[in-house]
Amino acid sequence: MEKQQLLYEGKAKKIYQTNEANILWIEYKDEATAFNGEKKDTLAGKGRLNNEISSLIFTQLKDKGIESHFVERLSETEQLVQKVEIVPLEVVVRNIVAGSMAKRLGMEEGTPLSKPIVEFYYKDDDLGDPLITEAHIELLEAASDEEVAQLREMALAVNEHLLALFSEINIRLVDFKLEFGRTVNGELLLADEISPDTCRLWDKDTNERFDKDLFRRNLGNLQEGYAEILARLTQHS
Amino acid sequence: MEKQQLLYEGKAKKIYQTNEANILWIEYKDEATAFNGEKKDTLAGKGRLNNEISSLIFTQLKDKGIESHFVERLSETEQLVQKVEIVPLEVVVRNIVAGSMAKRLGMEEGTPLSKPIVEFYYKDDDLGDPLITEAHIELLEAASDEEVAQLREMALAVNEHLLALFSEINIRLVDFKLEFGRTVNGELLLADEISPDTCRLWDKDTNERFDKDLFRRNLGNLQEGYAEILARLTQHS
Repeated sequence: MEKQQLLYEGKAKKIYQTNEANILWIEYKDEATAFNGEKKDTLAGKGRLNNEISSLIFTQLKDKGIESHFVERLSETEQLVQKVEIVPLEVVVRNIVAGSMAKRLGMEEGTPLSKPIVEFYYKDDDLGDPLITEAHIELLEAASDEEVAQLREMALAVNEHLLALFSEINIRLVDFKLEFGRTVNGELLLADEISPDTCRLWDKDTNERFDKDLFRRNLGNLQEGYAEILARLTQHS
Repeated sequence: MEKQQLLYEGKAKKIYQTNEANILWIEYKDEATAFNGEKKDTLAGKGRLNNEISSLIFTQLKDKGIESHFVERLSETEQLVQKVEIVPLEVVVRNIVAGSMAKRLGMEEGTPLSKPIVEFYYKDDDLGDPLITEAHIELLEAASDEEVAQLREMALAVNEHLLALFSEINIRLVDFKLEFGRTVNGELLLADEISPDTCRLWDKDTNERFDKDLFRRNLGNLQEGYAEILARLTQHS
């Protein structure tokens, strides 16, 4: 496989074309951003940790029958993925109240939900990725009604597996954000990454944070937290 | 009917108990507020205009078979209503993109919708009345799933009638906010008010605003706009 020109540089990743039309080459960066880019820093080693963790999780999900765009890990900071057209929605699954949901509803962070809640946010940096309803999704033509139902179902299936996976390493999966893409055949496929950048991960015993809230809220060393997740996942698998 | 002690004073109305347990005495105030109370003013005559308009509209809806808490107009600024337990949701119906929806979705104000959109906002001043999803409504126990379906259906029925009513007086009904209450029998009943405080009303020919955006956005004299709506409604009925 040959790495070709840079197609896109995002906040956390660079995406390159390859000599295969439907395969992209992803390079994870060390940059951390929060609050829609207002807070920024370079955290050496973050790219490697997210690439390793995301590769491990996508591989484990595949073993459980959940396909994603992940093809293979290439190096400490690189992976190959299938090319998809990204659906402009952030699909958030919540098991415990935290973050923006706690603020929006005036609920205490840490309150467990009796069943998982799925939310859709419109992927648009200029708008600050706002929460939207299914009627808004239809209006924006971000996804069809049928796709919204599928996204919800797929997100909840991922949640089932991630809950089990993280529970085995003594981690509470508080919430996480997924992105999906459409393949050339128009099928929805899990995409982006699953890492401490996109999940809230709390130690079951101490509620210690091992996720991007370490950076967002200045709670401690991000790389140490992410390394703890990688160590537990590696030891377990 | 005897007016008794003040039960509640809100931003736009005072609510008094009466000698009948299930009847309340409402007094419309001249205060205008916007942006969750950040902008305030006293606008002489506003209370009368909203009381007259709301009384007219509730009466016309009743003629079309849509019940509300409205019992009777008592004076220029007063009316009697049935006592209900207010559902803590603002039910917004939109026919044309405007206001917070234009901002949220990055759409141009004035864009017509191919079908009306219903949104639910959580009535909580401290939280700034946030947009919420049906999953949030369930979590907050603001209304049951069955009630949410009924609220949506009732709001769309009100929209049908208001669209026709305003069309006849050459007004574009852009969007509006409804509130509902539960009667002692647990039935949902249309409540609060329907006035230029709670509707966006644009002249069909000129797009001139006759609603609270006159005050919110300093577009002109609020009382003149509201008086125009009252004049057209009175002339027509």
